[in-house]
Amino acid sequence: MKNDLLLRALARQPTDSTPVWLMRQAGRYLPEYNATRAKAGSFLKLAKTPALAAEVALQPLTRFPLDAAILFSDILTVPDAMGLGLYFAEGEGPRFERPLRDEAAIARLAAPDPTVELRYVLDAVRETRSALGDRVPLIGFSGSPYTLACYMIEGSGSSDWRAVKEMLYARPDLLHRILAVNALAVTDYLNAQIEAGAQVVMLFDTWGGNLTAVQYEEFSLSYMRQVLSQVRKVPRIVFTKGGGGWLENIAASGCDAVGLDWTVDPSAARQRVGAKVALQGNLDPAVLCAPPSRVREEVRRVLDAFGTAPGHIFNLGHGITPHARVDAVEALIDEVRTYSRQLRAARV
Amino acid sequence: MKNDLLLRALARQPTDSTPVWLMRQAGRYLPEYNATRAKAGSFLKLAKTPALAAEVALQPLTRFPLDAAILFSDILTVPDAMGLGLYFAEGEGPRFERPLRDEAAIARLAAPDPTVELRYVLDAVRETRSALGDRVPLIGFSGSPYTLACYMIEGSGSSDWRAVKEMLYARPDLLHRILAVNALAVTDYLNAQIEAGAQVVMLFDTWGGNLTAVQYEEFSLSYMRQVLSQVRKVPRIVFTKGGGGWLENIAASGCDAVGLDWTVDPSAARQRVGAKVALQGNLDPAVLCAPPSRVREEVRRVLDAFGTAPGHIFNLGHGITPHARVDAVEALIDEVRTYSRQLRAARV
Repeated sequence: MKNDLLLRALARQPTDSTPVWLMRQAGRYLPEYNATRAKAGSFLKLAKTPALAAEVALQPLTRFPLDAAILFSDILTVPDAMGLGLYFAEGEGPRFERPLRDEAAIARLAAPDPTVELRYVLDAVRETRSALGDRVPLIGFSGSPYTLACYMIEGSGSSDWRAVKEMLYARPDLLHRILAVNALAVTDYLNAQIEAGAQVVMLFDTWGGNLTAVQYEEFSLSYMRQVLSQVRKVPRIVFTKGGGGWLENIAASGCDAVGLDWTVDPSAARQRVGAKVALQGNLDPAVLCAPPSRVREEVRRVLDAFGTAPGHIFNLGHGITPHARVDAVEALIDEVRTYSRQLRAARV
Repeated sequence: MKNDLLLRALARQPTDSTPVWLMRQAGRYLPEYNATRAKAGSFLKLAKTPALAAEVALQPLTRFPLDAAILFSDILTVPDAMGLGLYFAEGEGPRFERPLRDEAAIARLAAPDPTVELRYVLDAVRETRSALGDRVPLIGFSGSPYTLACYMIEGSGSSDWRAVKEMLYARPDLLHRILAVNALAVTDYLNAQIEAGAQVVMLFDTWGGNLTAVQYEEFSLSYMRQVLSQVRKVPRIVFTKGGGGWLENIAASGCDAVGLDWTVDPSAARQRVGAKVALQGNLDPAVLCAPPSRVREEVRRVLDAFGTAPGHIFNLGHGITPHARVDAVEALIDEVRTYSRQLRAARV
């Protein structure tokens, strides 16, 4: 590996500078991404065409000196492979044609064979790895069992996740059945990605933060723990958006790094989890709509808050938005490199 | 005051049972509310007609043995009185006809005279107090300076509050100017409500949770602190949704009680804030779509977690939804009364 900054930080080893990558770094803020997407016809076509998925995964690395590549895919490929019919209405979030609304559908639910039903993802992993060579590590990923269940039950994003909560309170047995299948499916899926070439894996628990503390343990974290215990030995990152209240529990789940959203104070987070795990985050993605000089200032603030102890991976606190300015992203990455080196030099 | 449970709990004095009221307790889950609203023609007409506002504020107390009444109004009356033109599109959240989009509009912004431009609210306070007599205390309220600013800048609710964040990062001086005017306006408004008869006041900081820890202090909490320091001496409650990371700071802001959303663990919250303030919350409002027996179980769980130390006000972790079952609300209130008495008896 020519650039092993990410792997070293995940192992809590010292690095010359803080590694940096961005959630959804291949995305609509990049004109070259929009061109490839237009060629593909739609986001889903793009994600399901391995050569094009590999092309867009590499685009941000061509433009910026990033320290990791991430598979170009969607967090909801697994329920799509279960037959729920993932689609995107123009200008809206993901939807399922056949959400889980009755007991019979839940009883029929089964983990797909990733080498068959998710083969296009594994091909994308292989093509991306092959194009990437040994420049930087490739991150594979999946939605968490609970986050998948949210969309599978609700059929779309939601501000209150009413159908999910109704099931949780009235029929927790059904929710547990879905989560058990999802945990198996996500485990198989991540192991297949690792076999195809992913060198790090990440669980995106985008909606775990809509639960109470007790429910988070029961319905989200316990299933992520199950996945982590059965995934082959590569470094693994867990990110629960809105999970700032439960960092100690996430850090003890068997992961190597905990993702932090922007509401979490980095130095308080480090105090709470100790030196046991790396921390990833946590710049507010909205900063990237501001002028580059402001971006540099906020990057320094985040780096100062994390300090120079080993085990920080610079990232956003949530995915990059389509409205991000390309010059702001450029400033972010340059400032992480420059300022994190300065911080280390000052410490010596 | 015939029923002073709320006032005693706010003063961290012992009570025979835990006081209970519900955010948005006068609302669309109640058929009698919907009948009055239909008579008024719209939500805003209802809120702006003091006799009808008093009527709906009393409805939940007629039906349930609640320990407090809350003024029936909207959190956005202040910017409406500033001339921004509050309206509600059918089935959607609040919107402003003239959001703050340029420097000139922000320079012109001025705190309204509540006795003139918000007279309808003060009349509603007087009519509600008069209808209520001394049965239970009446809570007045306002949106927090930051939460008002969010809607004033964005013009509506938002999933990413992009316009707000753009101003925060690129022109923080403009945001501070809006917040300074809002803090003055909210102070005057709450003082006028108190003079008209409100016996407790509450700040709803619905969107403070979209900030980083550092920004929360600078853009939300510091302005709430300013309001609290200038509001006449009645008990005051502060609720920042998504503010679980900053409870210590909120507790030190000059309030008597801190509202907790459902993601916060009550016993951890109590440990963090000590005995300095009362805590209000924090049942997940989604529970109220479940059968009454499940509701009772979750109510007991919340009461167990808060324990029997003085200074707990039972409430939801966010406003009640239109989908709440009336029998579920009835079970909630009955269980709070019955079980909190049992807990106290068991302790003796």
